[in-house]
Amino acid sequence: MRHSVTGRRTSADLAPTLACVNVISFARGVPAPECLPLEELADCARAAVERDGPTVLSYGSGSGYAPLREWIGDRHSIDPARVLVTNGALQGLVLLAQHLCTGGCRVLVEQPTYDRPLKILHGLGAEIVPLAMDDDGLDPDALQQALESGPKPAFLYTIPTFQNPTGRTLSTERRRRLVEVARTHDLLVLEDDPYGLIRFEGEPLPTLFELDGGDSVVYASSFSKTIAPGVRVGYFLLPPDLHAAVEATATSIYITPVLLGQATVYEFVRRGNFEPNLERVRTLLRIRRDAMLDALEDELGGSGATWSRPQGGYFLWLDVPGTDASELLERATAAGVTFVRGEDFGGAPSTVRLAYSFVSAEEIGDGVARLAAALPAAAL
Amino acid sequence: MRHSVTGRRTSADLAPTLACVNVISFARGVPAPECLPLEELADCARAAVERDGPTVLSYGSGSGYAPLREWIGDRHSIDPARVLVTNGALQGLVLLAQHLCTGGCRVLVEQPTYDRPLKILHGLGAEIVPLAMDDDGLDPDALQQALESGPKPAFLYTIPTFQNPTGRTLSTERRRRLVEVARTHDLLVLEDDPYGLIRFEGEPLPTLFELDGGDSVVYASSFSKTIAPGVRVGYFLLPPDLHAAVEATATSIYITPVLLGQATVYEFVRRGNFEPNLERVRTLLRIRRDAMLDALEDELGGSGATWSRPQGGYFLWLDVPGTDASELLERATAAGVTFVRGEDFGGAPSTVRLAYSFVSAEEIGDGVARLAAALPAAAL
Repeated sequence: MRHSVTGRRTSADLAPTLACVNVISFARGVPAPECLPLEELADCARAAVERDGPTVLSYGSGSGYAPLREWIGDRHSIDPARVLVTNGALQGLVLLAQHLCTGGCRVLVEQPTYDRPLKILHGLGAEIVPLAMDDDGLDPDALQQALESGPKPAFLYTIPTFQNPTGRTLSTERRRRLVEVARTHDLLVLEDDPYGLIRFEGEPLPTLFELDGGDSVVYASSFSKTIAPGVRVGYFLLPPDLHAAVEATATSIYITPVLLGQATVYEFVRRGNFEPNLERVRTLLRIRRDAMLDALEDELGGSGATWSRPQGGYFLWLDVPGTDASELLERATAAGVTFVRGEDFGGAPSTVRLAYSFVSAEEIGDGVARLAAALPAAAL
Repeated sequence: MRHSVTGRRTSADLAPTLACVNVISFARGVPAPECLPLEELADCARAAVERDGPTVLSYGSGSGYAPLREWIGDRHSIDPARVLVTNGALQGLVLLAQHLCTGGCRVLVEQPTYDRPLKILHGLGAEIVPLAMDDDGLDPDALQQALESGPKPAFLYTIPTFQNPTGRTLSTERRRRLVEVARTHDLLVLEDDPYGLIRFEGEPLPTLFELDGGDSVVYASSFSKTIAPGVRVGYFLLPPDLHAAVEATATSIYITPVLLGQATVYEFVRRGNFEPNLERVRTLLRIRRDAMLDALEDELGGSGATWSRPQGGYFLWLDVPGTDASELLERATAAGVTFVRGEDFGGAPSTVRLAYSFVSAEEIGDGVARLAAALPAAAL
């Protein structure tokens, strides 16, 4: 990986960098640098400004760059007027939650789930209701029960496909049931789907948005995993009234999202690069996923440990019953491998999120060996 | 101006566009397309990704792109660790206000002032205390009085140079007095300075931040007026404790600001383009400012109307005593010229904000003539 050219780095500065190289990170849920289509994006950024500079470099709609909104609308077969493109999907989630949670609210989430939304919802003073899940994703009975035993929730936040942190995917049967339950109870569902296209094998499942038709379901996705995180381009498909309200909030906060990033993404997809790049990224990540599954089998097969076997995405969920992941993290870090504790996502103390997205297959093998060596003998 | 290439525009679509061309906008406080250095920015965007792609296109610090933070730090002679680069300065203001106004607060502002911060502060439930100003900017006596007659304000929001909406500039003497008053009363000052470098003539005045040394004053600026709004790059110079708090909020909301825009700006300044571009923009805008002053003198000289004579920035403040600007706006719009009513900024009903930034000198002459013709005869 190249260093940023600040003209200030000296050889003395390199020592701590080199020391860090040896730590294998299963903590970073980010793409490896080789997943990023650097050269093509460099050219797309230039071309986007050359082609549409006066629009791209000025103020514009709070909903984002019109040609990209059209492309997204086409892709999802909805009116582009319902597409809101934000500076990354997380910021859109903040805008939406601020709108839906004015004056306190109850929000349903999977347990465990992505930690950043949990923090945002805490910050808004929301009552967060965690719902049980298993290998087939969110338990619809738990959802039903929560809906029948408390005040009406503002929304359900769910990541049905290759979930962060577990890598689990909601089964098709449960998807249908979830949409049915949502309709019956007039429940708004926020389907967060940044990983859905990063599928290594198996048939794609229908999204909740597709099953529902978009009245009860708000769909969110992003180009962070399919193109690059640094462009910060996320998007939302919203019912018209919600679109108007969230766009107004977006405009009041940042006038216009960063059109340069959005126009660069649009140029990339316009050139027909999206699908070939997806194939490339899937291949790179499948090799990593395979390396992690193989290493876990080699190192922990036959022990009491269990782990998810995701067909896509970035993450895998490890459970080592009887082990305290906080203690394990200390020993693992000392041994040169890191991860995020399951508890940080609302998971059990014995659980661990392993990201295979950032490190090479070789590093994954070494890292899992270090992790296994850091486990207490009783766990193996 | 080119149209965005959506591939969908037909000749039939052009009719309404052509009809709109005839409306002269003194409402849009945005740079004319010829102010934007399009070709150079196109090349800078490409070069930024080629030079530092893995950093620029991935997640990074919530405070923004490190080389740009260093450049800003050098320019203002402060530790880059105190620089926070945001997706436009408005978003930084929201982050800061959210932090300072938790649980309600009192905020002092100039009357009139930029409308977007007013809306943000209203949304946060702040008590907004407008302070009188005149041709020399904010009245320090009004500030002193407000400080002595109510609970401690969370901060003072001020645009001391080429203010939006009035174009007025705080005199050096008042700057010194303001900083003194702020220190005596332990008042935090937010100095918003997007226009300071767009000076057509006269010596630059010291910023409040420079006079204070940066303990009582938070300084905010942006590259929207000096390079291009569409890159959405604003920045804040913050005391260390405030920096840490606002960076944490920024990270929780968008993880990382849009590094692509920031790296493009950095490439632009690294190549030595900043000062020459500033000179170019100043010249383009000075011609427009002159055209507006000349036209006002021609059309309204000797009437009861008064207007500010800014030495820089985008705006000029017109007061036509006895005229209702809301009624005037209706008549003016029908006659093919628009502006923003002074009341929208908290100004008197007889006041008007005229932006000369977006339209050509020729259009300015025509627009002022239309505006004068739309005035009731009694006002002239």
